[in-house]
Amino acid sequence: MAGFEWISFTTDYGLSDGFVASCHGVIARVAPEVRVIDVTHAVAPGDVPRGAAVLAQTVPHLPPAVHIAVVDPGVGTARRGVAARTPGGVLVGPDNGLLPWAADALGGIQELVELANQEWFLSDVSRTFHGRDIFAPVAARLALGADLADAGPATDPATLIRLPEPVVAVGDGWLEAEVLTIDRFGNVQLAAGGDALDGLGEHLRVGGVRAVRGTTFGAVAPGGLVVYVDSAGRAAVAVNGGRAAVVLSVTPGDVVRLVAA
Amino acid sequence: MAGFEWISFTTDYGLSDGFVASCHGVIARVAPEVRVIDVTHAVAPGDVPRGAAVLAQTVPHLPPAVHIAVVDPGVGTARRGVAARTPGGVLVGPDNGLLPWAADALGGIQELVELANQEWFLSDVSRTFHGRDIFAPVAARLALGADLADAGPATDPATLIRLPEPVVAVGDGWLEAEVLTIDRFGNVQLAAGGDALDGLGEHLRVGGVRAVRGTTFGAVAPGGLVVYVDSAGRAAVAVNGGRAAVVLSVTPGDVVRLVAA
Amino acid sequence: MAGFEWISFTTDYGLSDGFVASCHGVIARVAPEVRVIDVTHAVAPGDVPRGAAVLAQTVPHLPPAVHIAVVDPGVGTARRGVAARTPGGVLVGPDNGLLPWAADALGGIQELVELANQEWFLSDVSRTFHGRDIFAPVAARLALGADLADAGPATDPATLIRLPEPVVAVGDGWLEAEVLTIDRFGNVQLAAGGDALDGLGEHLRVGGVRAVRGTTFGAVAPGGLVVYVDSAGRAAVAVNGGRAAVVLSVTPGDVVRLVAA
Repeated sequence: MAGFEWISFTTDYGLSDGFVASCHGVIARVAPEVRVIDVTHAVAPGDVPRGAAVLAQTVPHLPPAVHIAVVDPGVGTARRGVAARTPGGVLVGPDNGLLPWAADALGGIQELVELANQEWFLSDVSRTFHGRDIFAPVAARLALGADLADAGPATDPATLIRLPEPVVAVGDGWLEAEVLTIDRFGNVQLAAGGDALDGLGEHLRVGGVRAVRGTTFGAVAPGGLVVYVDSAGRAAVAVNGGRAAVVLSVTPGDVVRLVAA
Repeated sequence: MAGFEWISFTTDYGLSDGFVASCHGVIARVAPEVRVIDVTHAVAPGDVPRGAAVLAQTVPHLPPAVHIAVVDPGVGTARRGVAARTPGGVLVGPDNGLLPWAADALGGIQELVELANQEWFLSDVSRTFHGRDIFAPVAARLALGADLADAGPATDPATLIRLPEPVVAVGDGWLEAEVLTIDRFGNVQLAAGGDALDGLGEHLRVGGVRAVRGTTFGAVAPGGLVVYVDSAGRAAVAVNGGRAAVVLSVTPGDVVRLVAA
Repeated sequence: MAGFEWISFTTDYGLSDGFVASCHGVIARVAPEVRVIDVTHAVAPGDVPRGAAVLAQTVPHLPPAVHIAVVDPGVGTARRGVAARTPGGVLVGPDNGLLPWAADALGGIQELVELANQEWFLSDVSRTFHGRDIFAPVAARLALGADLADAGPATDPATLIRLPEPVVAVGDGWLEAEVLTIDRFGNVQLAAGGDALDGLGEHLRVGGVRAVRGTTFGAVAPGGLVVYVDSAGRAAVAVNGGRAAVVLSVTPGDVVRLVAA
């Protein structure tokens, strides 16, 4: 398999400890010419859906890469570590639902292996830090051009753990959708695509609160609620100069109801 | 225009979402050899003065670069996107007051264009994420050596939106100055240059609180207030082992009065 | 001295200001080919023991590098700036206890100098930002291959300030150890090595709370306390899906007592 010039890196490790740097160090030792793009390390501890969503929405904008993702509360237990080749790059991480949405975004899984080749791991594999001891060195070797098939036994993509699909229901003049992400601006991203807003008109109620359909934050008066299609193509809700997540009092996983007003 | 080996990047995007990484990805796709220095992505949402101050105080220490800055509450509205050539590099971002202080710090604007060449943008330009869809790809092309004049029509630098100049008033034995920034240590940086402290002597009151003129944090006893010239050449107030912003109970924009005691 | 391709960087500067970027900029100007790995910039202000611990536990996983560490409440006072050559790389920073644990981890100090060669510093050295004005440019020159002896006068490693060794006491069926670090997951790392757990059996009490000896977080039921050997080889305590630091109500420096139950 041809190599990659880039590795991307997404975890719940935070930036207060040396965990991310340790992984960067392992990559630097194995594949010093490869460049690393950090996606985020601020996924809340163990929040696999959050990691999966951020990863899936970011990888389409990254160059071809080996994408390491580690949100791994089951580290050191029976869960598999896997690597999946897609048209847009290779995903490396735990088989716990973290990777498949990103794989979909990159064009689907063409080849999947379970990570088992210990020659690719660090010599001393901890039970609690597989990012450093397994996923980073494996990713570095794949970036150098090592053959995915040498990473471990092939396995059927259908066996991957998949997160439940978020709730989306569309009706006549209404839309119910799960909150998929809330970003640092407090913008509420729904699991529905932007086209799901089409039947709702220019004036809506979101969770009972009046809102206006617009294209951007400045489309409403300051403090007003605007429903728009966000930069990931999804239906979203913002408050101009404020935080929709606070106004709507929602958190990821909640179902929000939008009705034409 | 000759290219640049570096791009700097300053936003209010935070590090919890994939926004910064998406921009890094766009740059990597267009100009993979260019290296990116992140200045900060922790500017509070929409806090243009904060972004402007941090950018202006950082760019003098960066190598020649294309400096992308995106604190952009008006994204997708009528505000212009611009690129400004200075002796120290090219600034790229929204015309909302974010860039001019940095342009001053880099030697002034030699050439200014409004970003209009859609061939430089991503093919699909969102209404809410111009950092990824306009500013990053434009900056990447400029870093590769593309001509600023090809980015869009030239425009008069005098038309740029400028933030109000912070309040600074100097009198006989007193100084009133706006708080320009508060850093992570709680040090209070005033808008006044260090020389404005010259007539105030060794013992002062700051907002009524006793303080000593010194050169560094350790110049006073722990807990004591010290007035000093900071590493950006501005008058500043610190508490040895504490947070001046808390002791003085100030926030950026507040005016602080220093008097010789 | 042969140069290094990498510099690592550990501070309490945070990521909200332009301080880290200014140092990256200085390195980029002096040694543009050198790559920088940020370890953490989230050390609490002036928390030298925290910086020392994170640095010491991270450097073994980094490539050979010049490791800059700046947690420096005494900046601009009489404290020395030093550079120490070890088998694993060169450490650069203030002589205040920050560096020696990392030096131990890298194989011990082979050569130590006090930083005094002003030709290596920026032309204008502030009293409050030696990371930018002294440590970064010195590190960049060392990375380029400059001779450590040219950085300043040699000095005896025994003169370095060393932090107190954390408390560890082992008895028959019990262990008392200082909390060394708490990570972003709330895992409580003790100053004791993992082997200190050997005499405590499978069931323990930690600070009076029931716990189980395990190998990883998932070894206990959710909410349960597990005592394990962490990825730095130290005795540690975690809560499966929770935060041990909260359950145990401890902070670094506290002494925790583990007894066989």
